[in-house]
Amino acid sequence: MHAVHYELLKEDSSTGARLGKLHTPHGTFDTPMFMPVGTQATVKTLSPEELYDMHSQVILSNTYHLFLRPGADLIRKAGGLHKFMNYKKGILTDSGGFQVFSLGAMRKITEEGVTFRSHIDGSKRFLSPEVSVQVQEALGSDIAMAFDECIPYPSDFEYTKTSTQRTSRWAERCLKAHSREDQSLFGIVQGGMYPELRRMSVEQLREMDFAGYGIGGLSVGEPKSLMYDILGQTTDLMDKNKARYLMGVGTPDCIVEAVNLGVDMFDCVFPTRVARNGTAMTATGRLVVRNAVYAEDFAPLDEHCNCYTCRNFSRAYIRHLFKAEEILALRLLSIHNLYFLLDFARQIREAIAQDRFSEFRQQFWANYQEN
Amino acid sequence: MHAVHYELLKEDSSTGARLGKLHTPHGTFDTPMFMPVGTQATVKTLSPEELYDMHSQVILSNTYHLFLRPGADLIRKAGGLHKFMNYKKGILTDSGGFQVFSLGAMRKITEEGVTFRSHIDGSKRFLSPEVSVQVQEALGSDIAMAFDECIPYPSDFEYTKTSTQRTSRWAERCLKAHSREDQSLFGIVQGGMYPELRRMSVEQLREMDFAGYGIGGLSVGEPKSLMYDILGQTTDLMDKNKARYLMGVGTPDCIVEAVNLGVDMFDCVFPTRVARNGTAMTATGRLVVRNAVYAEDFAPLDEHCNCYTCRNFSRAYIRHLFKAEEILALRLLSIHNLYFLLDFARQIREAIAQDRFSEFRQQFWANYQEN
Repeated sequence: MHAVHYELLKEDSSTGARLGKLHTPHGTFDTPMFMPVGTQATVKTLSPEELYDMHSQVILSNTYHLFLRPGADLIRKAGGLHKFMNYKKGILTDSGGFQVFSLGAMRKITEEGVTFRSHIDGSKRFLSPEVSVQVQEALGSDIAMAFDECIPYPSDFEYTKTSTQRTSRWAERCLKAHSREDQSLFGIVQGGMYPELRRMSVEQLREMDFAGYGIGGLSVGEPKSLMYDILGQTTDLMDKNKARYLMGVGTPDCIVEAVNLGVDMFDCVFPTRVARNGTAMTATGRLVVRNAVYAEDFAPLDEHCNCYTCRNFSRAYIRHLFKAEEILALRLLSIHNLYFLLDFARQIREAIAQDRFSEFRQQFWANYQEN
Repeated sequence: MHAVHYELLKEDSSTGARLGKLHTPHGTFDTPMFMPVGTQATVKTLSPEELYDMHSQVILSNTYHLFLRPGADLIRKAGGLHKFMNYKKGILTDSGGFQVFSLGAMRKITEEGVTFRSHIDGSKRFLSPEVSVQVQEALGSDIAMAFDECIPYPSDFEYTKTSTQRTSRWAERCLKAHSREDQSLFGIVQGGMYPELRRMSVEQLREMDFAGYGIGGLSVGEPKSLMYDILGQTTDLMDKNKARYLMGVGTPDCIVEAVNLGVDMFDCVFPTRVARNGTAMTATGRLVVRNAVYAEDFAPLDEHCNCYTCRNFSRAYIRHLFKAEEILALRLLSIHNLYFLLDFARQIREAIAQDRFSEFRQQFWANYQEN
């Protein structure tokens, strides 16, 4: 048995939605779940207690960033990432692959791994399946991700095939390098926008002993209809008894649709990033609290929200904090937006449990304004 | 009886130190007390709950800043400053005098008041005793301060006399303009570095019906020995049954010495300002946590401190947050520094209650390094 394992509790009768539990060394968590992102060993602006208060379960931290600063060695000496940042629930680390591939001209890929220049000081660095696993073992996350290439969109069939096959070889090397028993590895399905390459990727990874699977290379610029199409064809092929994590996706519309297609886990920087720009997420769309129209509006951000921010502060006050460039503004909106998505995932779980996810999805689309 | 009134509980037998209670419409608080500063209707980076957790009592907010942004009218509509910022304990507002006088070339003083240019948009604005009182009544603070001139150092005798007499006339106008029954006005003693003008100021204000007194125009650049000298000569003349608030002073050394001379209340932006630069205050002096020497130091900021930050995070982690420019760093150090000063005031109260303030003061100086 892997240290981290997925327990399928219920499959929805009329959709692909699944209710489950994710067992980890730091507790058992409910899926479908949204994971707040704590890139640099902190979910921007927030304390661990604020995360617990909003019922955050697993959070994500970035191997690339921590590898460069403060370094894996320092975090190992601190007793691991949980202790370093004082987060007592689950932590998932990505592999660093996504970030180094995003560096474009600043990186070079070989079969061995990726050489790149640090965005902090320009120094030459190297990440490979083995280095990524070593770093993630030093971080001591509950879930480590295999080192993969996230293929850009669009990419031609040949490049996608070559890259996806390399990702599979790298996945094997990750498993081989991995030794930490209180941590589990997830493989990452690639294959771009080609159903047959997605199938190839799923089948190759299935041969290996992963605790769960990321689905990578989606939401990279393709139309949403194409994303859902490829996603559905991918999840159809996947093991029902392992967790499925759609990487980097976390807007409410995408979460509803992906849950409908059988996805269990999500992460996204979107809610905290737009929070810092003064945008609140609500069930009916976005609210830009910086706008002058809210200057004397003493209602909470969202009348229906039960988050700390909405229970205690008005739109007028939050707008004042933004205009006055006060840091509390960033916190209050980050709390609201993360609470919104965590609660959204909770509502989805409740709907699946009560056999009304299909209805929930219909209702969501009836109210939602994409703006 | 004033809405706010001071109750003298105990005078120390061998020093000027006093133990007291300050009764306000938002609760009764213990003196000597340190007041955290929330300039723009927020103690920078912190939530009200974080302030309660560190046993914050009265906080200070700035009339000048709130007058310009978001405006007194908006805060009145919000139900007052307590409700706007959701702080349920005491609030003291200054008069705006200190800030407008600090504008230098951008302001013009007449008997009527001060015309100045807003530091935000350059617009022409006017503050007078009457306007300051109106604004503070709209804010609804528990304690409003009279509109005064904080005399720069050095200033000659003639200017100091002229200004101090005007401050007394303005004090009368403030009392006349004031009507809010759930708010009390404090007068402000001026007189620069001239004992006879301090005496004149105290005597003139004593004729008026103030609930308590600020002591202004100290810690404005003069040597500390001169400050203590003038302060002692001033408190000697003051009514024992009213609160004495030494404005803008709040480092541990000055607090100990001023308590020794009979001061009850303090405020200072120093602890939160240096926090945001990465400096922690401790009983033995300052610790610059950004320094490389703390990179792998997994001890708390201060081994003897019981604040949230010291109970949960290491120097190495906080240093990492500063290097990575994470906002949580600013919060964690602000919490530590304010806790340090609030707890320092608590220790002083305990020492006075137990008749060992003189010993406490000696011990303080034996350990303290001014750096």
